[in-house]
Amino acid sequence: MFQYLLFFTEPTMRRLATAVTLALASTTTTAANVILIVGDGMDDQQVTIARDYLKGANGQLLLDQMPVRSAVQILTVEDNTEGKPVYVADSANTATSLATGAVTSRGRIATSAGDDRDLPTIVELARAAGLRTGIVSSASVTDATPASFAAHISYRMCENPELMADITYSGIHLGHCQQDMKANGGAGSISEQLAVSGLDVLLGGGAKHFQPTVEGGTESVLRSAQLAGFSVVRSRDELLAAEPGERLLGLFAPGTLPVRMRGEDGREAEAPRPSLLNRLHQYLGSVELPEPMRCEPNPEAAGIPSLKEMTDTALQQLSHNNERGFFLMVESASIDKQSHERKPCGSIGELEQLDEVLASALDFAAQHPDTLVLVTADHSQAAQLIPQRSMFEAYTVPIYTPGKMARIITPEGSIMGVNYATNDFGYEEHTGANVPLYGNAAAEGRVKTFQRQSELFGIMREFLGL
Amino acid sequence: MFQYLLFFTEPTMRRLATAVTLALASTTTTAANVILIVGDGMDDQQVTIARDYLKGANGQLLLDQMPVRSAVQILTVEDNTEGKPVYVADSANTATSLATGAVTSRGRIATSAGDDRDLPTIVELARAAGLRTGIVSSASVTDATPASFAAHISYRMCENPELMADITYSGIHLGHCQQDMKANGGAGSISEQLAVSGLDVLLGGGAKHFQPTVEGGTESVLRSAQLAGFSVVRSRDELLAAEPGERLLGLFAPGTLPVRMRGEDGREAEAPRPSLLNRLHQYLGSVELPEPMRCEPNPEAAGIPSLKEMTDTALQQLSHNNERGFFLMVESASIDKQSHERKPCGSIGELEQLDEVLASALDFAAQHPDTLVLVTADHSQAAQLIPQRSMFEAYTVPIYTPGKMARIITPEGSIMGVNYATNDFGYEEHTGANVPLYGNAAAEGRVKTFQRQSELFGIMREFLGL
Repeated sequence: MFQYLLFFTEPTMRRLATAVTLALASTTTTAANVILIVGDGMDDQQVTIARDYLKGANGQLLLDQMPVRSAVQILTVEDNTEGKPVYVADSANTATSLATGAVTSRGRIATSAGDDRDLPTIVELARAAGLRTGIVSSASVTDATPASFAAHISYRMCENPELMADITYSGIHLGHCQQDMKANGGAGSISEQLAVSGLDVLLGGGAKHFQPTVEGGTESVLRSAQLAGFSVVRSRDELLAAEPGERLLGLFAPGTLPVRMRGEDGREAEAPRPSLLNRLHQYLGSVELPEPMRCEPNPEAAGIPSLKEMTDTALQQLSHNNERGFFLMVESASIDKQSHERKPCGSIGELEQLDEVLASALDFAAQHPDTLVLVTADHSQAAQLIPQRSMFEAYTVPIYTPGKMARIITPEGSIMGVNYATNDFGYEEHTGANVPLYGNAAAEGRVKTFQRQSELFGIMREFLGL
Repeated sequence: MFQYLLFFTEPTMRRLATAVTLALASTTTTAANVILIVGDGMDDQQVTIARDYLKGANGQLLLDQMPVRSAVQILTVEDNTEGKPVYVADSANTATSLATGAVTSRGRIATSAGDDRDLPTIVELARAAGLRTGIVSSASVTDATPASFAAHISYRMCENPELMADITYSGIHLGHCQQDMKANGGAGSISEQLAVSGLDVLLGGGAKHFQPTVEGGTESVLRSAQLAGFSVVRSRDELLAAEPGERLLGLFAPGTLPVRMRGEDGREAEAPRPSLLNRLHQYLGSVELPEPMRCEPNPEAAGIPSLKEMTDTALQQLSHNNERGFFLMVESASIDKQSHERKPCGSIGELEQLDEVLASALDFAAQHPDTLVLVTADHSQAAQLIPQRSMFEAYTVPIYTPGKMARIITPEGSIMGVNYATNDFGYEEHTGANVPLYGNAAAEGRVKTFQRQSELFGIMREFLGL
């Protein structure tokens, strides 16, 4: 049979061989797998904005077709051991909840609020039990969400050995991780920890965090990862050519991966422009709302592997000759990052990427029935779907957002208004609403209609028998 | 047995008698009932804000404990027969979707977009099949949500006979319903239609819309309702004393019912106050955020029946000696209205009222197993749960919302930030996100994880066998 396959082209053969492997695996193994897909900042506003653009107001994302849907309560606390509730979270504390089952304070990576204990992660538990583990992200792999699954540090910005003693931005001291430095008995920066994490697959951005020299050593963090057994891939071609069974570290950009989509000519949300008279009184004068715009492909994303391509490779590596199962976390990071920067087309494209990853995960689960697929967000975000012209325009006074808005021309020919108005800073705030959770059939009976984010850890752990 | 009851106080006796009636009914009837609870503007932000305040960050509303949870896609279109999608809805078109299964344009009450056809409502179908019907709202009963279940008109503001030919506000012409005037062959204003609707129970606010004289007649709309068989109650005491079996019209305020809760000393969300230097450049100077505040009971609500009291009376009237079943819609209207006015404590109190109504509905369903309880929102709203101080405050520049915010001291002793920033007008905009749907056990297998708002009509209709 395999002799026949030799007449096919290389990629076709590889796909067929993989299919055969998968088919054999599904009949011969009892491996349990968990695929956790995290849409960073993917709240119901973001999902609806993306659905309206990608599928139309009447349409459905693949997400919407999942058999299990629930809501997740996001919890975080002040940074002390008996910390009071804080009502808006960040990606560090929320990923820590997903990865460890603990509620911690903002900015922490798998460490406890106040007393800074390392919290065991599901990746570590899975590894200890002989399962394979993988992390895929469209952010730097050292960013808060991926980091929380395989590193422990008190402050998310300590992403490489040069960002440990003092993190400053424009001369402003933001924090440090001196207690985590190896010289002080710690495990070092996030990239240093990831390099020796034992992960089987780690794919995303963040190459710049692997260039510095490891603390107390002479080689780069990247070299230390290679010494620890990682094969390093740096391009889409190298990724797609990866041999099954390799332990893969893929770094496809210096930092966050370029996003798929952007506003026409790079436009983002803009401030409405009131006339001079309107500045005197809100009912006087007129206002010019931002011109409607289309979304377009982001030229910077050319040659960057898609989140689905990274996920497909990860699934191949993790499932190849694996009788024990795996844990894989895939993050679509820039739903959040583009919302911080008031770029609605960017968020839409990254939600599309997440929906594609879900298709891959469901295909895999169809061939490997003992696979739990969960999709959730870590926290809600600033963007709001608002009327593209005020609901109250009959009042014939200038009415407009005090923030910034985009008016997006959708493929079905209507105009969608997206508002960003949580602050006047360079980055919008997160918001605190509960977020959606979606599951495949394997989630039925395991997921309640409403639960704490930290409880998802226990659900995944139990599914994997850890 | 009933002789014994005479020794109890009147209210106790009535409660016991009701309990006996309910118990007998549950064993002797196969009536199917639907209780639809609508939280106007009750999106995931509003639910989380209310949960954090009422139950704590770790707590749960009764809503959160429902066995069925789903998401609802909100649809509306331009006002022509082939209208393109519009991405943000209002309470008129959304209530029309729930009541009739049709997607229509904003502002319409159970009439079709463009060609203005009357759309049969679930209340009318239920009545025709011999079921009882009831509507309870904390808005005027003539407001968009209740009206859409039992009236047909092209424009929601035509609430009484004096608001038909021309509706103006501060000299601005907003619309009219001339084609719906009786003189032109129409059915008249909303209050006129409700008066002769045949509803068994209609409770809420809006007394002022029943004072005008009916078009072409000499009596008031209220009198026409009495002539059509309604017993009119005007106070909480009269409501609680209603005899089972009466057809009840209850009007407890001139317009919207006063809400349960308000900000300390009537405070609402306020604009942050930047220093003069900060007006020159966003990174200069300082900003004074609104002082934290508590929520307090609204003194204006004294003596007004709660939404739960109205619901309990409605359930009593609808179920008394009823072998065929009923349809009841209960709306907590001011989650939305208080959000329009940037009053977070108001919205929280009205969500608390909704949760109490749900408790009554579930109690009733426990005694009458063939009762479908659905809770949903009509559309999402402007309020956002944001950090009470910016997530980026380490940057030491003034960072604050361009809109208005409240910083609410919660009973668990933390501070919650609520932002309103969709426009600079007197009323915030709606938003367009999909909204939650909750169901009791009777909803299992009937409700998908994601569906169009208009599909809920079919689910209720099928449950009632209409």
